[in-house]
Amino acid sequence: MKYLDKSKDELAKLLEEAMKVYKEYQRQKLSLDMTRGKPCSEQLDLSLPMMDALNSESSYKLSNGLDARNYGGLEGIPELRKMFGEIFDVPAARVIIKDESSLNIMYDTVQFCLQFGTGGYEPWNKQGPVKFICPAPGYDRHFAVTQALGVEMITVPMKEDGPDMDLVEMLVAADESIKGIWCVPKYSNPTGTVYSDKVVDRLAAMKTAAPDFRIFWDNAYFTHFIGESDVPLKNIFPECEKAGNPDRVFMFASTSKITFAGAGISMIISSDKNIEEFKNRIKYQYITPNKVVQLMHYNFLQSKENLNALMKKHAQIMRPKFEMVLNTLEKEFGNSDVLKWTSPKGGYFISVDTLEGCAKRVVQLAKDAGVALTNAGATFPYGNDDKDRNIRLAPSYPPIMELDLAVNVFCVAVKIASIEKLLEKAE
Amino acid sequence: MKYLDKSKDELAKLLEEAMKVYKEYQRQKLSLDMTRGKPCSEQLDLSLPMMDALNSESSYKLSNGLDARNYGGLEGIPELRKMFGEIFDVPAARVIIKDESSLNIMYDTVQFCLQFGTGGYEPWNKQGPVKFICPAPGYDRHFAVTQALGVEMITVPMKEDGPDMDLVEMLVAADESIKGIWCVPKYSNPTGTVYSDKVVDRLAAMKTAAPDFRIFWDNAYFTHFIGESDVPLKNIFPECEKAGNPDRVFMFASTSKITFAGAGISMIISSDKNIEEFKNRIKYQYITPNKVVQLMHYNFLQSKENLNALMKKHAQIMRPKFEMVLNTLEKEFGNSDVLKWTSPKGGYFISVDTLEGCAKRVVQLAKDAGVALTNAGATFPYGNDDKDRNIRLAPSYPPIMELDLAVNVFCVAVKIASIEKLLEKAE
Repeated sequence: MKYLDKSKDELAKLLEEAMKVYKEYQRQKLSLDMTRGKPCSEQLDLSLPMMDALNSESSYKLSNGLDARNYGGLEGIPELRKMFGEIFDVPAARVIIKDESSLNIMYDTVQFCLQFGTGGYEPWNKQGPVKFICPAPGYDRHFAVTQALGVEMITVPMKEDGPDMDLVEMLVAADESIKGIWCVPKYSNPTGTVYSDKVVDRLAAMKTAAPDFRIFWDNAYFTHFIGESDVPLKNIFPECEKAGNPDRVFMFASTSKITFAGAGISMIISSDKNIEEFKNRIKYQYITPNKVVQLMHYNFLQSKENLNALMKKHAQIMRPKFEMVLNTLEKEFGNSDVLKWTSPKGGYFISVDTLEGCAKRVVQLAKDAGVALTNAGATFPYGNDDKDRNIRLAPSYPPIMELDLAVNVFCVAVKIASIEKLLEKAE
Repeated sequence: MKYLDKSKDELAKLLEEAMKVYKEYQRQKLSLDMTRGKPCSEQLDLSLPMMDALNSESSYKLSNGLDARNYGGLEGIPELRKMFGEIFDVPAARVIIKDESSLNIMYDTVQFCLQFGTGGYEPWNKQGPVKFICPAPGYDRHFAVTQALGVEMITVPMKEDGPDMDLVEMLVAADESIKGIWCVPKYSNPTGTVYSDKVVDRLAAMKTAAPDFRIFWDNAYFTHFIGESDVPLKNIFPECEKAGNPDRVFMFASTSKITFAGAGISMIISSDKNIEEFKNRIKYQYITPNKVVQLMHYNFLQSKENLNALMKKHAQIMRPKFEMVLNTLEKEFGNSDVLKWTSPKGGYFISVDTLEGCAKRVVQLAKDAGVALTNAGATFPYGNDDKDRNIRLAPSYPPIMELDLAVNVFCVAVKIASIEKLLEKAE
């Protein structure tokens, strides 16, 4: 149904119908949560065998001779460095395995640059204002890190194949105070975008005014397909080397959505020179990551093939949820002119765009009917979605029956907010 | 035997005898390590049952309703906050449980003060030079953190009952740029000192020129007795409150030497206001600590009583090692005038003082006979032991037979270095 060419009376009637449905939902006193990209219990159960992968009878001796239960081994266990080196097609020496939070490594990496500088250049703290490019819609926690650390954010639109590269290239070439860009290059949060080879090449090769410019390459969903198989992402490191920018990229990843969320392992991968620099920072910061957790992960995962098999099981749990949401959106708004959405092949989110000026109202309406959605605006730097259009839907966590209810509430909220907006304009 | 009143000829003869013994050790091609305070395998084995305290059949539901395997719970699991609150006699709300490295929390806490300030004052980074008081001999990793972060270190002597408080009080009252002091208040690294009640009171009450002065209270060995029972340390928090300095102390602790080294859990404890501030920093830095590891620890430890029982078993392993080292020192230098040492009631170290100008030579001689000791000077800021006297002995890690050999090599090295020094003076 097209809403934009409806008469005022028709709209009023549609609103009345929608309100009737909405009030019916309100009467049910729902309490449903679609706010965050959390794995559901069924997904977490997939990795329960990991908890049997180490017990009091196990060997804790690592391949480098260290006892996983004792101090030593700043870089993480060699078993996992090798395995993830193979997965990401980089030498194991360029992989540092840390604890459960890749966000923590990202925060530390930005803080290291601020306090100590990178590549031998002055600490960013001493170089005056520092700016980061933030493709949006994007990941709210990235924006929170940069804001907390006093880094100014420049919003750049996300396109189908990645950030608007014409704009990115223009900005970084012109402004020396732009020191970084946040990227979620695969199954991007929240749009599900996989950066095209062309975008990867341009990011690797672009001229930057700042010699100490860095790409914060958050490969959070590197193997998190929902469909039958994975969509490839071009390896950015060889492109950086070819372009003469070997130290441009800090890559981050974790197993939070592979094994346990916030109880897995995480990593940073970069050039030899950057890894050397990173080790020279962390050797003061801590003594060793938790090698027992790392060994438990290694014993459980073992290989790229096992990891892929595990991700197929995740996909089997995720796929019906995504399909259900997408089918409902299609049924309710398939031929409409008030809602657009992404159909991601991986990741944890569906990104929707309402009519301009409706997102906040939709989230409020959903909330008032007991359905918590991610705050409107959260996907933009400073929480500021100029057009008040974007909402992030997170279908992973709720059981499918609850999700069904939640998305139906969402749909009626979209109808109400859209019709209200159109009526407002008609006046 | 007294060495200082011996004639040149007598000394020459003693040196010859010592060199004979030394060369005999050299011939054995030893490779022994007494450098770090690492628990030994037998100690680590004590906590192996912890690895059975969670398996694929366990419940992962926490008392606050969270799933330990999923996101959420920035402050650590309530079970452990409560337990350590009881152990340290502070409300659970003032305990934040993090991952395996208390050093990491200390580093972050200093970095937060530098980047953001504390107590509402300007970031230390913006206040010009920042200085810390470093009681010495002390813990080399504390000094490394301050040095790495560009904080200037002022060495203050350690006395029998804690730092030289007359000097500390004078310094902090006079200099606004002194923002902190490192303290290991119980079984101090390396001297084994337990701060007296009087020292605790004076630290809590002293007037500081800097309103944002902080005590970094590294309670690393809070329950790590070697003797039959624990030596009490006065709780500093109530004293700070009484003195009108409620926000003065950041306390740190970990289970690295209770369960697994570098694979346990760690914590920060402070005032309500400081904890609020800390939470406002870490909420950008990470999402959750590893709650599975925390739950495993809670299931295993359960209570203060169990923890104490476990520490008794540690003491039973540690005591013979410490006794052996102390007995050997007593046998070789009991009536001598060339070596002094501490007889700690807990902790991981014995601190020895040689004649002035001998410590480096002793460490070198030991090394050349295959016995690695902590570098001379490591226990002082900038590695600078003015008098070149202090050496830290770490008896915990080697099996007792190896330790016996190592300490005998150490003793002969002390004899050689001392006699050489006396002969040098006699010339």
